[in-house]
Amino acid sequence: MGTLESERTTTGWAARDPSGILSPYTYTLRNTGPEDVYVKIICCGICHTDLHQAKNDLGMSNYPMVPGHEVVGEVIEVGSNVTKFKAGDIVGVGCIVGCCRNCRPCNTDNEQYCNKKIWSYNDVYTDGKPTQGGFASALVADQKFVVKIPDGMAMEQAAPLLCAGVTVYSPLHHFGLKQSGLRGGILGLGGVGHMGVKIAKAFGHHVTVISSSDKKRVEALEHLGADEYLVSSDAEGMQRAADSLDYIIDTVPVFHPLEPYLSILKVDGKLILTGVINTPLQFVSPMVMLGRKSITGSFIGSMKETEEMLEFCKEKELTSMIEVVKLDYINEAFERLEKNDVRYRFVVDIAGSKIDQ
Amino acid sequence: MGTLESERTTTGWAARDPSGILSPYTYTLRNTGPEDVYVKIICCGICHTDLHQAKNDLGMSNYPMVPGHEVVGEVIEVGSNVTKFKAGDIVGVGCIVGCCRNCRPCNTDNEQYCNKKIWSYNDVYTDGKPTQGGFASALVADQKFVVKIPDGMAMEQAAPLLCAGVTVYSPLHHFGLKQSGLRGGILGLGGVGHMGVKIAKAFGHHVTVISSSDKKRVEALEHLGADEYLVSSDAEGMQRAADSLDYIIDTVPVFHPLEPYLSILKVDGKLILTGVINTPLQFVSPMVMLGRKSITGSFIGSMKETEEMLEFCKEKELTSMIEVVKLDYINEAFERLEKNDVRYRFVVDIAGSKIDQ
Repeated sequence: MGTLESERTTTGWAARDPSGILSPYTYTLRNTGPEDVYVKIICCGICHTDLHQAKNDLGMSNYPMVPGHEVVGEVIEVGSNVTKFKAGDIVGVGCIVGCCRNCRPCNTDNEQYCNKKIWSYNDVYTDGKPTQGGFASALVADQKFVVKIPDGMAMEQAAPLLCAGVTVYSPLHHFGLKQSGLRGGILGLGGVGHMGVKIAKAFGHHVTVISSSDKKRVEALEHLGADEYLVSSDAEGMQRAADSLDYIIDTVPVFHPLEPYLSILKVDGKLILTGVINTPLQFVSPMVMLGRKSITGSFIGSMKETEEMLEFCKEKELTSMIEVVKLDYINEAFERLEKNDVRYRFVVDIAGSKIDQ
Repeated sequence: MGTLESERTTTGWAARDPSGILSPYTYTLRNTGPEDVYVKIICCGICHTDLHQAKNDLGMSNYPMVPGHEVVGEVIEVGSNVTKFKAGDIVGVGCIVGCCRNCRPCNTDNEQYCNKKIWSYNDVYTDGKPTQGGFASALVADQKFVVKIPDGMAMEQAAPLLCAGVTVYSPLHHFGLKQSGLRGGILGLGGVGHMGVKIAKAFGHHVTVISSSDKKRVEALEHLGADEYLVSSDAEGMQRAADSLDYIIDTVPVFHPLEPYLSILKVDGKLILTGVINTPLQFVSPMVMLGRKSITGSFIGSMKETEEMLEFCKEKELTSMIEVVKLDYINEAFERLEKNDVRYRFVVDIAGSKIDQ
């Protein structure tokens, strides 16, 4: 590690308190260690978890906090042990920047479940300093937590894949739900949900979007290619869908009843939670027992799965639907995201923002 | 079907109302159809579900109701199409006596999850008559739902296997949890739980019994052969057990918090509910997401699994721990079961009870 004098500074937009309002904040970055990659950030997606963290909804926020964990940038410098990347490469960094490398999850390519994982922001790195995220000019990350963005993939398209994309890909991969012909449900059509429709369709699934209102019917069916659209308050439609789905990816990040969704799963069906919800969820035991159904969850994906998913999206020519904004719009973007007013992911154009002014 | 005149009568002990008190009740049995087996009942285990049903705890009881679904008896007569059984065979009948034979579960040897399954009591058979259970002199059942009790297995020992035994065997089989070396938890040490310890040990697992009190420590460790005993209110012990178990079979048939048990599962661990609980259970989503844990459930087992389980128990010389009682003690037995005052299963000696007096 360098001395304070030799360390670089960077500027990001940080939340200062639970209001969650972001404003420019300058901080130091560690020097590029042997395993490190120094990345100039080009763009960064906004995930609902960024909102939760900025506003201390989960009760564990530390300020100042620069959120952002769907980071795409250009490699400026690599450490002496880094062979996978070189200056000029376009790379991505997601939710995690460290793990113990020694536990069962770490030893089985499931480092996202390591109990000592280090979050890319709102955490403390091995050098004792706070980690800061992607709404900033630059970051330094260990090469293990950096992925190559496939050649030819648009950078702003790639950003949401690093969290939203792998959040859907990983459970389908892990739970053996990739084969063609399955019937899947996507509950909630936000950033994760819209990638869910696209990835599930690319696997050859019959995809039903389940939503609390009729608002997104046309988009789901016509723009995203879903096969069916089900409004959860439509009792008849839900009844018709009983016992019909192999899985539901539940992307809703706020409290919701689980029974209606358990009831439309087939025997052995899986309800896969991907949203962090700080209110207890409920169900009655016969709803799972009498159909051997599972309520499970999944958290992003491993670095290996992230690489696989990026290649899969490139091969299938999957793109995310995004609204690109500049950094000085980020507080409005956060407000709109809270109201679910975005189709479907904000991506902040960092390189095009006048970040240091 | 025969005429009323030609139908046989039998006497069982029936609940008449939600008091759940059982008393003698005489009813007709259908004649032995081509697919049927007419069974003289020798003994029948008492399961906690019998209590729930007799007392209308699940809100769907019809009276008069003869409970009992761990039935062992002797074949007296078989229908013209029955080749699997002959008079004199010792056989078992469990929770289910009918299914549609046409749905996905039925076509994949998972008939216990058929939506049109017929319960062995408190249900209506295909002839429009109520089904009645095993606390009676005799029953008639379709051969599909009858299993052979392996030669040499004591009848009163076999009875609890038909529900309690297969309730544990089936999920371990289905969820790929039979290999030696796994670490399992058995939550609750009643009829199902004690078979859970024995079957899991027979698979070569390291077994932790988790209980709300210290009362059964000696029995669990010394009589049943469990490896560890954990009291759920012992915060330090629970903390030490964090992330340690591959699965927990949760046999508790009343409301209980799930978080403490989720927390002692490893990444990818499974909490398998086997108790019907009429109060919603709760959990917070990060508890499952951040370890890709599953809350699932399992309901008895298929006929195929029941046969496998009986052979397994015979091969491993597994016995259940039971208290044999006569039918005229059944109301006391129900009361004691409600207080969990039995080691570990009551089995009613039907043949030795003066049932018709």
